Amino acid sequence: MLTMQEALLVLNKYWTEHGCLVVQPMNTEVGAGTLNPSTFLRVQGPEPWRVAYVEPSVRPDDSRYGENPNRLQTHTQFQVILKPEPGNAQELFLGSLQALGIDTAAHDIRFVEDNWASPALGAWGLGWEVWLDGLEITQFTYFQQAGGITLDPVSVEMTYGMERIVMALQDVSHFKDIQYAPGVTYGEAFGQAEYEMSRYYLDEADLDTQRTLFEAYAGEARRMLDARLPVPAYSYVLKCSHTFNVLDARGAISTTERARSFARMRGMAHEVAELWVARREELSFPLGGGPDTAADATVDGTSADAAAGESAGAEQDAAATAPALTAESGRATLALEIGVEEMPPAEVTRTSQAVHDVLAEKLAATRLGYGDIRVAAGPRRVIATVADVEPWESDYEQTLKGPQVSAAYDADGNPTKAAVGFARSHGADPAELGRVVVGANEHVALTRQVVGRSAEEVLSSLLAEVVSGLRAEKNMRWNVPRLSFTRPIRWITALLGERVVPFTVSSLASGRTTQVHRNAVPAAVEVPTADGYLSFLKERGILADAAERRRLVVDGATRLASSVGGRIQVEQYGPLIDEITNLVEFPTPILGSFDAKYLLLPPDILVTVMRKHQRYLPVVDAEGTMQPYFVAVANGSCDHDVVRRGNEAVLRARYEDASFFWKADLETPLSEMMEKIRLLTFEERLGSMADRADRISAVARRLADVVGVSGTDREVLDRAAALTKFDLGSQMVTELSSLAGVMAREYAVRAGESEAVAQALFENELPRFGGDRLPGTLPGALLALADRLDLLVGLFAIGAEPTGSSDPFGLRRSALGVVNILLSRSELAGLGLSQGLAIAVEQQAVMVEPKRLDDAAQFVLRRLEQQLIEVGHATTDVRAVLVRADSPLLAVHTLEELESLQGDDRFVRVLAAFQRVRRIVPASVEGAYGPDQLKEPAEQALHSALTKCRQVLDGETSLVRLTAETGELVDAVNVFFKDVLVMVEDPGVRANRLGLLAAVRDLAQGIVDWEKLG
Amino acid sequence: MLTMQEALLVLNKYWTEHGCLVVQPMNTEVGAGTLNPSTFLRVQGPEPWRVAYVEPSVRPDDSRYGENPNRLQTHTQFQVILKPEPGNAQELFLGSLQALGIDTAAHDIRFVEDNWASPALGAWGLGWEVWLDGLEITQFTYFQQAGGITLDPVSVEMTYGMERIVMALQDVSHFKDIQYAPGVTYGEAFGQAEYEMSRYYLDEADLDTQRTLFEAYAGEARRMLDARLPVPAYSYVLKCSHTFNVLDARGAISTTERARSFARMRGMAHEVAELWVARREELSFPLGGGPDTAADATVDGTSADAAAGESAGAEQDAAATAPALTAESGRATLALEIGVEEMPPAEVTRTSQAVHDVLAEKLAATRLGYGDIRVAAGPRRVIATVADVEPWESDYEQTLKGPQVSAAYDADGNPTKAAVGFARSHGADPAELGRVVVGANEHVALTRQVVGRSAEEVLSSLLAEVVSGLRAEKNMRWNVPRLSFTRPIRWITALLGERVVPFTVSSLASGRTTQVHRNAVPAAVEVPTADGYLSFLKERGILADAAERRRLVVDGATRLASSVGGRIQVEQYGPLIDEITNLVEFPTPILGSFDAKYLLLPPDILVTVMRKHQRYLPVVDAEGTMQPYFVAVANGSCDHDVVRRGNEAVLRARYEDASFFWKADLETPLSEMMEKIRLLTFEERLGSMADRADRISAVARRLADVVGVSGTDREVLDRAAALTKFDLGSQMVTELSSLAGVMAREYAVRAGESEAVAQALFENELPRFGGDRLPGTLPGALLALADRLDLLVGLFAIGAEPTGSSDPFGLRRSALGVVNILLSRSELAGLGLSQGLAIAVEQQAVMVEPKRLDDAAQFVLRRLEQQLIEVGHATTDVRAVLVRADSPLLAVHTLEELESLQGDDRFVRVLAAFQRVRRIVPASVEGAYGPDQLKEPAEQALHSALTKCRQVLDGETSLVRLTAETGELVDAVNVFFKDVLVMVEDPGVRANRLGLLAAVRDLAQGIVDWEKLG
Repeated sequence: MLTMQEALLVLNKYWTEHGCLVVQPMNTEVGAGTLNPSTFLRVQGPEPWRVAYVEPSVRPDDSRYGENPNRLQTHTQFQVILKPEPGNAQELFLGSLQALGIDTAAHDIRFVEDNWASPALGAWGLGWEVWLDGLEITQFTYFQQAGGITLDPVSVEMTYGMERIVMALQDVSHFKDIQYAPGVTYGEAFGQAEYEMSRYYLDEADLDTQRTLFEAYAGEARRMLDARLPVPAYSYVLKCSHTFNVLDARGAISTTERARSFARMRGMAHEVAELWVARREELSFPLGGGPDTAADATVDGTSADAAAGESAGAEQDAAATAPALTAESGRATLALEIGVEEMPPAEVTRTSQAVHDVLAEKLAATRLGYGDIRVAAGPRRVIATVADVEPWESDYEQTLKGPQVSAAYDADGNPTKAAVGFARSHGADPAELGRVVVGANEHVALTRQVVGRSAEEVLSSLLAEVVSGLRAEKNMRWNVPRLSFTRPIRWITALLGERVVPFTVSSLASGRTTQVHRNAVPAAVEVPTADGYLSFLKERGILADAAERRRLVVDGATRLASSVGGRIQVEQYGPLIDEITNLVEFPTPILGSFDAKYLLLPPDILVTVMRKHQRYLPVVDAEGTMQPYFVAVANGSCDHDVVRRGNEAVLRARYEDASFFWKADLETPLSEMMEKIRLLTFEERLGSMADRADRISAVARRLADVVGVSGTDREVLDRAAALTKFDLGSQMVTELSSLAGVMAREYAVRAGESEAVAQALFENELPRFGGDRLPGTLPGALLALADRLDLLVGLFAIGAEPTGSSDPFGLRRSALGVVNILLSRSELAGLGLSQGLAIAVEQQAVMVEPKRLDDAAQFVLRRLEQQLIEVGHATTDVRAVLVRADSPLLAVHTLEELESLQGDDRFVRVLAAFQRVRRIVPASVEGAYGPDQLKEPAEQALHSALTKCRQVLDGETSLVRLTAETGELVDAVNVFFKDVLVMVEDPGVRANRLGLLAAVRDLAQGIVDWEKLG
Repeated sequence: MLTMQEALLVLNKYWTEHGCLVVQPMNTEVGAGTLNPSTFLRVQGPEPWRVAYVEPSVRPDDSRYGENPNRLQTHTQFQVILKPEPGNAQELFLGSLQALGIDTAAHDIRFVEDNWASPALGAWGLGWEVWLDGLEITQFTYFQQAGGITLDPVSVEMTYGMERIVMALQDVSHFKDIQYAPGVTYGEAFGQAEYEMSRYYLDEADLDTQRTLFEAYAGEARRMLDARLPVPAYSYVLKCSHTFNVLDARGAISTTERARSFARMRGMAHEVAELWVARREELSFPLGGGPDTAADATVDGTSADAAAGESAGAEQDAAATAPALTAESGRATLALEIGVEEMPPAEVTRTSQAVHDVLAEKLAATRLGYGDIRVAAGPRRVIATVADVEPWESDYEQTLKGPQVSAAYDADGNPTKAAVGFARSHGADPAELGRVVVGANEHVALTRQVVGRSAEEVLSSLLAEVVSGLRAEKNMRWNVPRLSFTRPIRWITALLGERVVPFTVSSLASGRTTQVHRNAVPAAVEVPTADGYLSFLKERGILADAAERRRLVVDGATRLASSVGGRIQVEQYGPLIDEITNLVEFPTPILGSFDAKYLLLPPDILVTVMRKHQRYLPVVDAEGTMQPYFVAVANGSCDHDVVRRGNEAVLRARYEDASFFWKADLETPLSEMMEKIRLLTFEERLGSMADRADRISAVARRLADVVGVSGTDREVLDRAAALTKFDLGSQMVTELSSLAGVMAREYAVRAGESEAVAQALFENELPRFGGDRLPGTLPGALLALADRLDLLVGLFAIGAEPTGSSDPFGLRRSALGVVNILLSRSELAGLGLSQGLAIAVEQQAVMVEPKRLDDAAQFVLRRLEQQLIEVGHATTDVRAVLVRADSPLLAVHTLEELESLQGDDRFVRVLAAFQRVRRIVPASVEGAYGPDQLKEPAEQALHSALTKCRQVLDGETSLVRLTAETGELVDAVNVFFKDVLVMVEDPGVRANRLGLLAAVRDLAQGIVDWEKLG
């Protein structure tokens, strides 16, 4: 059994043998190995760099006094940087696991989408967390930017979480039990430091001092940037970062302060990075890679291995071994496989569709005949097959247009210079020129018989375009120039029948070699023919067809569940199953169990952990009650017992954590949790989370007054309002923030609150995400509404509204929540949006300028508008009814009327009449006139009809009623326009007639926005 | 060839295999591996601990922009702690060198005294720097205290200087050329950081910010101590320490600020250490070693190896194999060898003498017969031999005293109970009682015949006392309880003839095994007999006799020097040769050479480097001119070529450094160096070094006025005064501070100053140490005097005078300098000490209180007093002449007179007369009387004699003159006392007579202090 220190030594040795420099940890506290200058600075610029080092990573926020089995304020990262990324980093990584004694064939090792970003460093990359039997052991990232600078070449970073790996290797369940060295445990060696530093970070660090330090550090960083010294500057940026983390762990960072500090650190990191590259350039890039050595970018000894390595993709055999293309008569199957490092599950589906569409489009634009196009995809590959591709394009006649006839021949009918030049340029004799009419002009023309190209020729360029055109939602670059995709493309297999369709995309060449499961021997195989491509792969353990994989997941999981008398809620977990389907190439469901004692935890907790963290399927009994089982889905063949034990251990650790929080929380009175949220800064100017809770409480009670809530509902509301947000002070929600509300309900009931109060507290948080359910009770709805109104008003008041794609407080989601809650309950029909906002304004400690309030209201209306359009209503109609959106219910009702009246004759006439009136009357004219001055009968008739309508209609009138009641008025309008000239010379008469029409216009104001319908 | 990273890996592996935990470097900047909590905290308390780690050590003061080949602001230490020290740490260390591929038999590896202390940490220990062919590669220390706490058990620390070791292994001469990893040099990997951090530390760091940081850190440390959290507290102490170092590198730390900051950090470190131990105790010492596990202190796996190790001393074979002691008739030689780890050279000599003395004393107190006692000693052993020790003590008669006879017999003459009891208690019959007279009383007594003990019995206890009583100037403890000596005692060999004299001292047992050279095979040998002990060792490569070793050094070096036509200045380098003699067990002189180009450097530089840093003997030609050769003296057999090359490389590196400074300094105008000393803080309140130079200059010129210097001397003085101390602004003196003055002379001449001015600048610094020469010119003497007067007055003014053993400014040496300069030049005879101090006071910017000035004067007088006593003058005499010490010259002259008059009849009479007068006249009586009132002839005669004397004598009179001129007065005094009663009843007469005597007394006042002679 490896000790911790041996494990570090093994990795050290392994990566040294693979050309890495070994450096020491940073000599100032850093939150991750990435922050070490050996990563942050070295990934910049062109110089090659390979490095490996241990980095004790300090995360004050993870302080747990050494009590949590898996969380430490200082954990040990082993960091590897390969620059440029060598093309086979995943394989090198797996080799390192083998060096650690991990049998990679027995275990389930997976690359699960995880995109990394450091806002403080202006850095991001795409990659994975690597799972060992469900345990995240390594972060694996292709760096795209650092310090806000796009990196070229791209580096790959591997960050091993050593405590986790060693705990798994040693089969211990608490970090303190790790054998650190022979005879010495981790706890014995570092337990006291873990406790004491936790005390410091969580309880003791002096806030004023830390703020002083932050400013002092930032000042030095600034000065060093000005002195053009990136190394000391960066060291001070790191000190800023750590100090920020300390303040954060002490709960002393407000959301705006966070954003401001991040922006500041990011700005400095950016300058550091720029300066570093500039300085390296001044030094002529000592490690190579600069312009002088561009042709020889791998002179550096560290990258010799990269060139000699077992690169999985770059070298293919196509060009060299492809048989010469010869004409053939038979149709053949085309198969294109694009091999990719593990794609995010959503991209598997998306890319599959995209490849289908682009192939169909591009093939249609050729003169090749072909049959069915099918695309299948899994995490590591997209495979398109096209049946019955003809070997040749059909021949066709091509007309080449020349100069206009008028310019092509002189008066004598002899070809002009222009005509001769045109003919000659196409190798023809002027005598061959014909004529063609293009638009209004007649041109000379040449007609050519074009012989169709071979399928290979057509497909070579077409498939190259397909591959190079691949794009995902979020794309990355890697060490293949000019390509950009969700993850690196590593191989291209392209066969037409038995022959390779040869092409290259950047430095990738097509061939007939594909990669199967990394455990397989051999892992790379040659595909003999395009026919039966999927079957060929299936025989080798790769299921390319997603539907087939999904079936295996569902059937396998169901069978396993039933083997212990349970079932899987397949419908409920549809999206999770979809995700699992695209995380594996050959689903291998494995049944695991956990100690039944954890069933005492609320199922929401159990399920959240399984679903969000582990992608396990829960097993329930016939009644839907949780059973102490789960189904994990491994990728391909593995040792089931080993993988089961691993996954069980991971879940046990997570449930142990949760139990710990659960017990601790249950021993904590609600009042104490309420006290804790006093320490949580919500926003600097908007106070603590407790301040916010107080405001929510007050707003909810005022709303209740407005809509007239009484009796039990009122009692429930008042009690729940007094407790709102208390669960943010619980350990469980601190750890698993998605359980906010859920835990409030659980803890409230157990603290002796009524079910109704508990439910209201739960509903306070609804809806939590798009498509989430809405509050089901009136007290819950009022709390949820108050919550969101307070958020909107407060943040708009201080100018923290969303900008661009940045919406840190989720205001868009909140505004939509307001709309949908108002739409969901008839009791709230009487509550205007503006009224609700005004009530929220009353509770704010900050000044709310009218302009800000108006912006907030408009912001909510825009969400309603967007939602209505997204569900399929016509934009015109939606915009027309927004005039009533202060009551979303009324607006939606009006929209429904508007849609129901579409094509209704009466409504068409009404609309036409009102529009006609609206168009002739300037907006500034008021609806006032002297009935006495009306002389013409048509005038008088209109007056009479208008007067009748006014008695029954007003701005609150429904559209249907308006249509029903205005028949006479519409007739009168039409007669009026036929008989009466409005714009007479007599100004008095003219004004009176305009006034009459304006009065007609005003009758329908506020029902819909007629202008929008115009 | 090992790369740097491989070397680290090798050490890592080696020490892991020897039971060490491997930890990571500290995540805040530390100046040395010792500061890492894995050392500083873990050496505290009883818990066993073995650890090894790399520590990139940040020393802002060592910043050199990466230009100096051997000095870096961040250098790499490899640190090992073994606790408790295992008894064979030196052997383990040599094993690690072998693991690095160093052939320890070929190289000259030595342990050269170097005692380590960290004032900031309140830590110290005794040990060595380990030399590899003259190159210091490792610091090896037995920790005695840390945080001001005495350590128990004692830990051993090994700190490898990795850059140096790897440079030697790779044979490169600049750290940047080290192969750090395959294909990557140290310079390529870390050169830029080295440059930039140097810039920061030397030029850019903001002083105010650093001071703010220091206070912030100190505040947090304080708070964490109060919160009883030693780990975070310590981390902030380290941050304080680094910040202090940054300020220091920027030249912003004054001497008092240094002392204050050190005191503060030391205080905190002490509290940290105490708290750590207390907290570990609360945790019941998790790693063992506490009271519960005392019996099992090595339960910890890390120390298993210690027990099994090849301990050189603890286990001996004496007790088990010693033949039974039987009576023998023949005399035999006694040999006692005390085996010690390498003693400091001075202790070799001292201990040799001490063992001789104690043996002689103790043997004399026995009844054994014995012959010559001889003691020989080398660095690793002290060997005493005693010839012709008799096998038995002589028998003798013993008388036991009982009760007094009066109490021993009753009236009847029968023995009393007391007598019977006394007899019985000695197993005798009362009838056997005899009598003995003791003092005035007669007692009953018993007489016994005592048989002498065997020599073995006598010697067993005697030798044990010799060993356990060994003490040095500075002593340490190690893992053998109750012993305390300069370095650990590891073995004891004790033979009487062929037999072991068995005894134990603490856990050490005597035996017959000794250790020879560590390279020898075997390194441990059994000695058959005490006869020819030294010859036995000599045959095995150990020369125990210092005289013999010295001869080998001198003869060998001389022979080697003459082989290149040169010679060694044996007389001049006597102390150095003595030191070398005691650094080796078998001197192996090796001739090395260096590039003749370095001879262009001033010889003082070349010699200083050789002598102080390398203990090489310079080779000169017949005229005494330096030749490009040196003689290094290796220890025992080695590969001469290897050792020569190594030593040559070391010297080359040092000379290269010196050349670099020399060239840089020569390109720097003196004015620029003068500017630089403006930046050197001398003392916070006393200003910069330039302020001090200005004061010295002004004081020197005023002194010249006083003593009347004119002409050339005056011109020279004025010019030199304007330049004084400029060389403190040179790089050379910054590096080699002992060259202050020497470099001033060199640079001044080369800058076009006259030889006389240059000489005066050199003499400004004289005397530099006890026994150093004094200024040889008047301008030099005046500058040197001014320098020291300013120092004394300034520091006494601000209360920074020496206390106890602390004398950071060397005021004792300065005061002695003042005295000796004044003594050395007759031109200065007219200059009073108090006058000189008063002149210095005029130039001070700070207020000098009269009390302080007086203290300073007294302080100088005390030095004169001490010096005079030390050279052998009688204390009484010295104290008597101090009354004239405002002119030390006069005081010394008077002292000489006093001594010459010793036993002179006239002087005896004079002295007696004056003392008689002095004793009868109260000190308060003034020497005034009415001559008219003198009635008695004896009165009148005295008056007459006094009047005559007064005409020729005064307070300046020499003692000889006084003696010569006062013959009549003495006679008159004697007659007066015979004939006249002073204390008559008539108060008028009495007063007049006392006045007359007082006047006689006053005649001799100020010549000597008669009271002291009384």
